Amino acid sequence: MKLALIGCGLLGGSLAAAWRRAGRVSGVVGYDRDAAQAAQAVARGIADQAADTPAQALRGAGVVVLATPVGAMEALFGELARHAGADAIITDVGSTKAGIIAQARVALGERFPRFVPAHPIAGGALPGIENSSADLFAERWVVVTPQPDTDLRALQWVEDSWSASGATVERMAAPEHDRIFAAVSHLPHVLAFALVDLIAAQPDGLRKLQFAGAGFRDFTRIAASDPMMWRDIALANAPALGTELAAFRSQLDALQAAVDSGDANTLLQLFERASRVRREQRFGAAVQEGYGD
Amino acid sequence: MKLALIGCGLLGGSLAAAWRRAGRVSGVVGYDRDAAQAAQAVARGIADQAADTPAQALRGAGVVVLATPVGAMEALFGELARHAGADAIITDVGSTKAGIIAQARVALGERFPRFVPAHPIAGGALPGIENSSADLFAERWVVVTPQPDTDLRALQWVEDSWSASGATVERMAAPEHDRIFAAVSHLPHVLAFALVDLIAAQPDGLRKLQFAGAGFRDFTRIAASDPMMWRDIALANAPALGTELAAFRSQLDALQAAVDSGDANTLLQLFERASRVRREQRFGAAVQEGYGD
Repeated sequence: MKLALIGCGLLGGSLAAAWRRAGRVSGVVGYDRDAAQAAQAVARGIADQAADTPAQALRGAGVVVLATPVGAMEALFGELARHAGADAIITDVGSTKAGIIAQARVALGERFPRFVPAHPIAGGALPGIENSSADLFAERWVVVTPQPDTDLRALQWVEDSWSASGATVERMAAPEHDRIFAAVSHLPHVLAFALVDLIAAQPDGLRKLQFAGAGFRDFTRIAASDPMMWRDIALANAPALGTELAAFRSQLDALQAAVDSGDANTLLQLFERASRVRREQRFGAAVQEGYGD
Repeated sequence: MKLALIGCGLLGGSLAAAWRRAGRVSGVVGYDRDAAQAAQAVARGIADQAADTPAQALRGAGVVVLATPVGAMEALFGELARHAGADAIITDVGSTKAGIIAQARVALGERFPRFVPAHPIAGGALPGIENSSADLFAERWVVVTPQPDTDLRALQWVEDSWSASGATVERMAAPEHDRIFAAVSHLPHVLAFALVDLIAAQPDGLRKLQFAGAGFRDFTRIAASDPMMWRDIALANAPALGTELAAFRSQLDALQAAVDSGDANTLLQLFERASRVRREQRFGAAVQEGYGD
């Protein structure tokens, strides 16, 4: 099974390395808009060849992975419709799903059932092919959002490939995926960008940043993320992100009222609820005391 | 010089250990509202004796350190006015300054000049006397906010003690301190609490938290902080925190408009500015390109 890797960054490089090590693919051709990245993939033994165009990479590929920023995918689906083999499995690693699926449905036409929408959750690593690793997905989630007409063999092949890479595969509906990641990923990124920008733009911003401590550094680490990638994500997931952002603004309205009026009880209750959840790190726990009543 | 340590937690324990190692104090009496904490201070060799009351700890003390939550300090200043020696140096480790100073001025009366308001910036460590260390303040900031009538010898003694502990001392006006830490510490804490609480309270909150990745964990680490301590800080620094919170809400209003209208340029520009500052970690740099025009 030959892999056409479109986009040679951290995720694509790690996927190719992991799938090859697991014996899921036997040859890799890499394409990147930045030819130096594709050359790096070859130099690191992640790809066997670098292609000059997407069409060249697609030639003879049994599986095609789109590992580009979300905003570049629509045009690439058009390339796939023209140049991918009729039986090629197509998948992606995009952080948003419903928008990509809608684009793929239009652009891929009758090939759409061979597209398996997927999103590996592997944040926290440094970006770039130079940081890619076959171990990146070990004990990480990979969310797969198949459609009613998704080809079941293609779906199974992609899920098996992720499982063989050490990941835990979770199927869900695309809108649920987008709601979840709007809340736990896209919104925190937007908030971190917003805070750093707010402070840095103030007349005394540099003076303030001079005294930023460990808490600020943790809170704003994700504000160092790639701006174009996050612009794409914010736009591609605008409906769900907009909903979460509006809810968060309401939460802040209540907090502002509590701060301004010296409402100690409201502050303490909110801080206690959050602190309990966060300290217990109940990410995935079955019981949710004190919430959702 | 005997030290009366009022509040035996991470900061107080570390201060006593650091000042003793540096030869700044030769004996330590610890008091804590929770007698077990004071006993721990003795068991760990941080204090020589545990006192049953603040008054008992103050007997014969040349320097008194308030290392309690900010909300407990007002009452303690009253104890100090009654029981501290006339020449005792008084200082604190509180995260807010103007409010504490105002309380101290009223409660301490003619002893007020012997009070040296201070704030060591040592976030990121685990709380509690069991995590205290004489090394906690090495290469950290300690902000000191003396008043026009602060006794210069008391000020010098406190600053020298911090310098001898490896910290870098910065003098500033109390309102500037409060503005700075409202922006780079208090606001991020409030935002992290608010986000965890918002998500956890949603009907699908647990499902969402199940898929939270490294970015979310970093962003919300400070939401595990002590709720009562942060309620006190939010109330004690309400004017400055309220100002920063209002500015952040305006920033989010603009972001919401950009997300809802698909304004790619506004999003990209904001993300780029923030990412540049954060990646370069220009906390303390002298030049601030692209900002403050």
